[in-house]
Amino acid sequence: MKLEQIKTPALIVDLDAMEGNLRDMAKFFGGRPCKLRPHFKNHKTPMFAWQQIRAGAIGMTCATVREAEILVEHGISSILIANEIGGQEKPERLAELSRNASVMVCVDNCHSIRDLAAAQRNRQSQIEVLVDINIGLNRCGVAPGQVALDLARYALEHGLAVRGIMGYDGHLQAVPPSSERDEIVRQGSKAIVESAGLLESSGIPAPIRSTGGTGTYAVSGDYPGITEIQAGSYLLMDNIYVSRGAPFQRSLTVLATVISTRGPKHAVLDCGLKAISGERGLPTLRDLPGARLTALHAEHAIVELDGQSPSLTPGGKIEVWVHYNDATVNLHSRMYGVRHGELEEVFPIEH
Amino acid sequence: MKLEQIKTPALIVDLDAMEGNLRDMAKFFGGRPCKLRPHFKNHKTPMFAWQQIRAGAIGMTCATVREAEILVEHGISSILIANEIGGQEKPERLAELSRNASVMVCVDNCHSIRDLAAAQRNRQSQIEVLVDINIGLNRCGVAPGQVALDLARYALEHGLAVRGIMGYDGHLQAVPPSSERDEIVRQGSKAIVESAGLLESSGIPAPIRSTGGTGTYAVSGDYPGITEIQAGSYLLMDNIYVSRGAPFQRSLTVLATVISTRGPKHAVLDCGLKAISGERGLPTLRDLPGARLTALHAEHAIVELDGQSPSLTPGGKIEVWVHYNDATVNLHSRMYGVRHGELEEVFPIEH
Repeated sequence: MKLEQIKTPALIVDLDAMEGNLRDMAKFFGGRPCKLRPHFKNHKTPMFAWQQIRAGAIGMTCATVREAEILVEHGISSILIANEIGGQEKPERLAELSRNASVMVCVDNCHSIRDLAAAQRNRQSQIEVLVDINIGLNRCGVAPGQVALDLARYALEHGLAVRGIMGYDGHLQAVPPSSERDEIVRQGSKAIVESAGLLESSGIPAPIRSTGGTGTYAVSGDYPGITEIQAGSYLLMDNIYVSRGAPFQRSLTVLATVISTRGPKHAVLDCGLKAISGERGLPTLRDLPGARLTALHAEHAIVELDGQSPSLTPGGKIEVWVHYNDATVNLHSRMYGVRHGELEEVFPIEH
Repeated sequence: MKLEQIKTPALIVDLDAMEGNLRDMAKFFGGRPCKLRPHFKNHKTPMFAWQQIRAGAIGMTCATVREAEILVEHGISSILIANEIGGQEKPERLAELSRNASVMVCVDNCHSIRDLAAAQRNRQSQIEVLVDINIGLNRCGVAPGQVALDLARYALEHGLAVRGIMGYDGHLQAVPPSSERDEIVRQGSKAIVESAGLLESSGIPAPIRSTGGTGTYAVSGDYPGITEIQAGSYLLMDNIYVSRGAPFQRSLTVLATVISTRGPKHAVLDCGLKAISGERGLPTLRDLPGARLTALHAEHAIVELDGQSPSLTPGGKIEVWVHYNDATVNLHSRMYGVRHGELEEVFPIEH
């Protein structure tokens, strides 16, 4: 089947570009002590997770218990939930998962530790945790050093298995590389490695020190003592990470149909914000010089052309570059793998 | 089951509020010649569509062929796709649907008319169309009057069944009612009714004249000659329509769990932009004075408290008012119907 025959709006992955990203990232980590545990939340595609593991990843990172369940259902048994969970239901599900897989979760407060401890007692399993430290994102995480050690002790006292330290530098993913920024990235890595060292000198093994994303992996992946990197967006890429200078190719587009035109300067596509995210900025048009996507409505994208652009005809097909892959993949249930304009494989996206 | 026991993030509908909206809108249309054909895209919930029909709606409006297929699969047989479609695949699916149901679609160009004509020939069915006129939204639609008549003739010549005129005043939904705005709404209705009159005086029956939304139904619903209104958001409501003064109650929230806190002024919820839309503005917190939702990340909502607010504890539950119902419903596969804090019914959302 040709690309143009896929029903729209459709999420398209260019397989050559995606596989190139996979190889380039595998090459980076190939010769290093630090390893890649790529994030699943960006693609939610178990077949891609397996490709990443075959390329050398040591397991998967994810954001939710649901994602961990999907990974375990698909046979992946070394997982980090790089996030806090609370209440009763999520800890119970995690405890159940932990009977058959290694699923680490992050902790940054005593309430959640008690919830996790109660759940693992109920399910007779062993929950593994990383202490999440705040390295500047100011979202979750405790202070590095003594506070992290106190929380690790509290977790141990409640019967949880402490595995190490995590810190996520989400605020630095958005900053293009520079010597100043890279120094701040290293400060974050240093806080993680030093906090892990403090645990170990207090008799608590902390072999896992996790951080980093597609914008910072090259810096934190080289920091001595950091053992794993969580980067995920590198595989599919998007306009955000292109603008930040990440050295990978965009492989993700949304295929759309032109449904209306008015004169040579106005067209409407059938991919609105229910098919492509506009949360962080508007998508852009692929291979259509002189044309600009100017607005997303629920079911429509508005395109303005400069009159010199190739004209658009209702019924014609257009590819749109994704601005933000994470939120866009979340809107779809499958990804169409295309090579040289031919559909090669359809990948289920799991929710 | 209590509200607090529902797994998070969960889309919650307050049944008393929703049913009140249903009754109030039914009362408005009860004594009028103009009828309601409510939009399905806001709730995507067949059980709600049936409630609307039992309350007097004459059928459903929707935005896509997929939504029309869902409605037909659920036994609803009078449908308006208030949108253009193009290419080959969508017209074929519409032609197939039209063998067993009345599914009108909008046209605003000759390409699509030829696509629709080819599809109905292939499927030996009869496609019904409304001519879409531009009444100021400047998205789709031809000019009112002679151009609309020319397009209706072109559709007839190609064997399509012309049923009337549609125009959507989306640009006016955002403007709070005032005598000036209402006059502009009436100008749009006038263009629709006059274009339909021009068709009829040229021998083309045009009994359907459709327009309006939750922000304008009260004005266009009273305009002589307008036969049906497409309002949909009135049922669930959201912060956008509250800010525009629509006389309905918000019934939709997302239930979230607190997963992290840092001191008395910072908390993190497990409902990010994958569970609640931030496309048109940030959601707000229900029943939490002094607290503000300040950012949505992919899987996190950041909450700032003023220190006087009731304190939040990891594991606790919070309800969040939806800012934009349409894009939020699109992120979920079920809606939990709650009355007085008790779960009463779970409604599947169809995609």
